[in-house]
Amino acid sequence: MAFIKPEPPYYVVIINSALNDGDLDGYAAMDERMAELGVQQPGYLGRESRTGADGRELTVLYYRDAESIRAWQQHPEHLEAQRLGKEKWYADYYIEIAKVERAYGFERTPG
Amino acid sequence: MAFIKPEPPYYVVIINSALNDGDLDGYAAMDERMAELGVQQPGYLGRESRTGADGRELTVLYYRDAESIRAWQQHPEHLEAQRLGKEKWYADYYIEIAKVERAYGFERTPG
Repeated sequence: MAFIKPEPPYYVVIINSALNDGDLDGYAAMDERMAELGVQQPGYLGRESRTGADGRELTVLYYRDAESIRAWQQHPEHLEAQRLGKEKWYADYYIEIAKVERAYGFERTPG
Repeated sequence: MAFIKPEPPYYVVIINSALNDGDLDGYAAMDERMAELGVQQPGYLGRESRTGADGRELTVLYYRDAESIRAWQQHPEHLEAQRLGKEKWYADYYIEIAKVERAYGFERTPG
């Protein structure tokens, strides 16, 4: 794990997305800015992201609570990024907000 | 999307895993059998999975409710697969069960 997860309950935002084939002007800079701003938000815990061979991205963002997610969704710079994403950069996306009720893990002990 | 998602609430199982560097004997066959058996379980809706460049896999399994997840976790063949996974195949995994409270999407209209 790249970050320590708290005991449940906590929240996740699951983002399943694909970028547009066309004009990605400005996307990389905005993506970087949102990542930078996103980690500074109250309640932000961390993220996991993988891009498939087909270019589709699956991202899970971790938050302390639902209020932290709502606040970030309404952040003025993030609202502008969302507007541009729909206007120009994304082919499609599907976003789910979920409350983690249970969690458990396993790590192999060396040797 | 590879499958139609229902209106919330529904459930997800988020699996963040890495396979062992060593002995993967029997893993592929068991993985295939579990996929085959998994889609037949009551309440199973679908899955999304991506493997990162580092080999770590991020999977989201979708279910109608929490009971469906518990039943699959306790399925005899699945219990044996989980036992072998810990004994031989996985370097580590972290599993979260979460209730989807909100969901929304965007799809670009052609042209």
